[in-house]
Amino acid sequence: MNIAVVGSGLIGQAWAIVFARGGHEVRLWDGDPKAVTSALTLIAGQVADLKAAGLIDHPQALLERICGAQTLEEVLDGAEYVQENLPERVEMKKEIFGRMDKIAAPGCVLASSTSSIPASAFTEDLPGRARCLIAHPVNPPYLVPVVEICGAPWTDAAIVQKTWDVMESVGQKPVKIHRELQGFILNRLQGALLREAFKLVEQGYVDAEGLDVTVREGLGLRWSFMGPFETIDLNAPDGLADYARRFGGMYQSIAEEQTSTEPWSEALIEKLEASRRKILPKEQLLARRLWRDRRLMGLAAHKLAAEKNTK
Amino acid sequence: MNIAVVGSGLIGQAWAIVFARGGHEVRLWDGDPKAVTSALTLIAGQVADLKAAGLIDHPQALLERICGAQTLEEVLDGAEYVQENLPERVEMKKEIFGRMDKIAAPGCVLASSTSSIPASAFTEDLPGRARCLIAHPVNPPYLVPVVEICGAPWTDAAIVQKTWDVMESVGQKPVKIHRELQGFILNRLQGALLREAFKLVEQGYVDAEGLDVTVREGLGLRWSFMGPFETIDLNAPDGLADYARRFGGMYQSIAEEQTSTEPWSEALIEKLEASRRKILPKEQLLARRLWRDRRLMGLAAHKLAAEKNTK
Repeated sequence: MNIAVVGSGLIGQAWAIVFARGGHEVRLWDGDPKAVTSALTLIAGQVADLKAAGLIDHPQALLERICGAQTLEEVLDGAEYVQENLPERVEMKKEIFGRMDKIAAPGCVLASSTSSIPASAFTEDLPGRARCLIAHPVNPPYLVPVVEICGAPWTDAAIVQKTWDVMESVGQKPVKIHRELQGFILNRLQGALLREAFKLVEQGYVDAEGLDVTVREGLGLRWSFMGPFETIDLNAPDGLADYARRFGGMYQSIAEEQTSTEPWSEALIEKLEASRRKILPKEQLLARRLWRDRRLMGLAAHKLAAEKNTK
Repeated sequence: MNIAVVGSGLIGQAWAIVFARGGHEVRLWDGDPKAVTSALTLIAGQVADLKAAGLIDHPQALLERICGAQTLEEVLDGAEYVQENLPERVEMKKEIFGRMDKIAAPGCVLASSTSSIPASAFTEDLPGRARCLIAHPVNPPYLVPVVEICGAPWTDAAIVQKTWDVMESVGQKPVKIHRELQGFILNRLQGALLREAFKLVEQGYVDAEGLDVTVREGLGLRWSFMGPFETIDLNAPDGLADYARRFGGMYQSIAEEQTSTEPWSEALIEKLEASRRKILPKEQLLARRLWRDRRLMGLAAHKLAAEKNTK
């Protein structure tokens, strides 16, 4: 399949790798022609890292499936699926989707990577609004496979399905969101946990590092290969309903203490920031991000092997 | 150090392995003498599995450091640290802590594995209440290292520190909780996320399997080696405070939709149960638990290797 990637920043680069790794032909375009040239170089570096981690087999063939395009017309020519990755500003989304909808062939899917703007906010007035939707990745999508798929009320079900199929064809893990909502699913779950985490530190029950240890050495382990529902399903003799009936009262009683919606205070933010800077000085943030990406690569390789071995 | 494990069920067995793996001499006792014999057999099986997974080197030496005791007096004789694992009933905790406090040598730590009862609920009237506290593990502690340490208001700080040191000496990851609260830290964080998860399915935004995919293929990956604070610290150019200022508004706006404290309805519980049973029939629950434990073993081995390689 011919796939167009529109916007060649970090997310656009990562998508190009995902689609080419999955065997598709990828064209990459950016409003700034110089950005595409530099993106192609950065992509080659990332592909070399993936090869070194054992996550891909044929880096050269993969890279040959990615090429740059000079114009929006060229990137969309013959494309069956478009993944858009411009900055998170609704006016920019409106403008690019208007242009893409005029140029792209009928039936071509127009998907946006936005994490914060619903499709209804920038597609309502388009003749081809039924082929527009969100396909929200987690960065970088070649290491974190989930993709949240969320249409506007007018998005065609067949377009949602085609997007799902494209994602499955490249080994991503699509999740269908049935109605628009802020934060989609992933960030709402993250938000719920973060709110309690901020609160527990603010009220002095635990310090920030202790809270992180609780997750990375405990709570987060199962969640890296089972979801929260499967986790509780296996944590009571008779499964999920048994668990919910045993512990529902406890969780409800805890929930009654978790209803605060106060904004995070500046004092709390500064306290948490100070705690992190004691562990990781600001000048080491970049190095630690590279460490994180190596750990994500290692985890991805581990999960692939584990899934083969323990069906 | 001589360590006493009181109560030889699943958690007691797992603690015996943790302490013996860490080089301590372990004595194991149970109200039912037959339970100890069977526990020693089960422990040998678990140790063989750990050896097979590459998680321990000398299974025989480890097993030789664990022996059964016939009486409470015998298990406590010479012990410097006691880990109690009776059922989650406050009357049983009161009774056993009363007996242990009479018998154990002065200075011996009396720690309970309870996940739901604060130490103040069963130690207040004891002469040795200052040496009593909670050391709450996640099952099984030889694969999930976090231990939540939480004293009563009268627990001696030196006892908290000694418990911390014992846990570190065996490779566990202790977390200090500064005041008693229901659910400690781990289950409060789990509860906050579960509540939103139940709600999102109830309101029809996503189905249960889609929600699990969102976590196991996305949100849960970073949390298996970084906590939530380190995760956001690395997710904005200038670190945690930068992240909190960029996204605090979004999370607060989401939080305003997350304040419901209604109990989980029976209809919702049955819907989630039905969704799980379609994926995993009830008769496969046990096999899937063994799968989970193999995956946890694989993940533990992966994390050990990754921590060595990517300092």
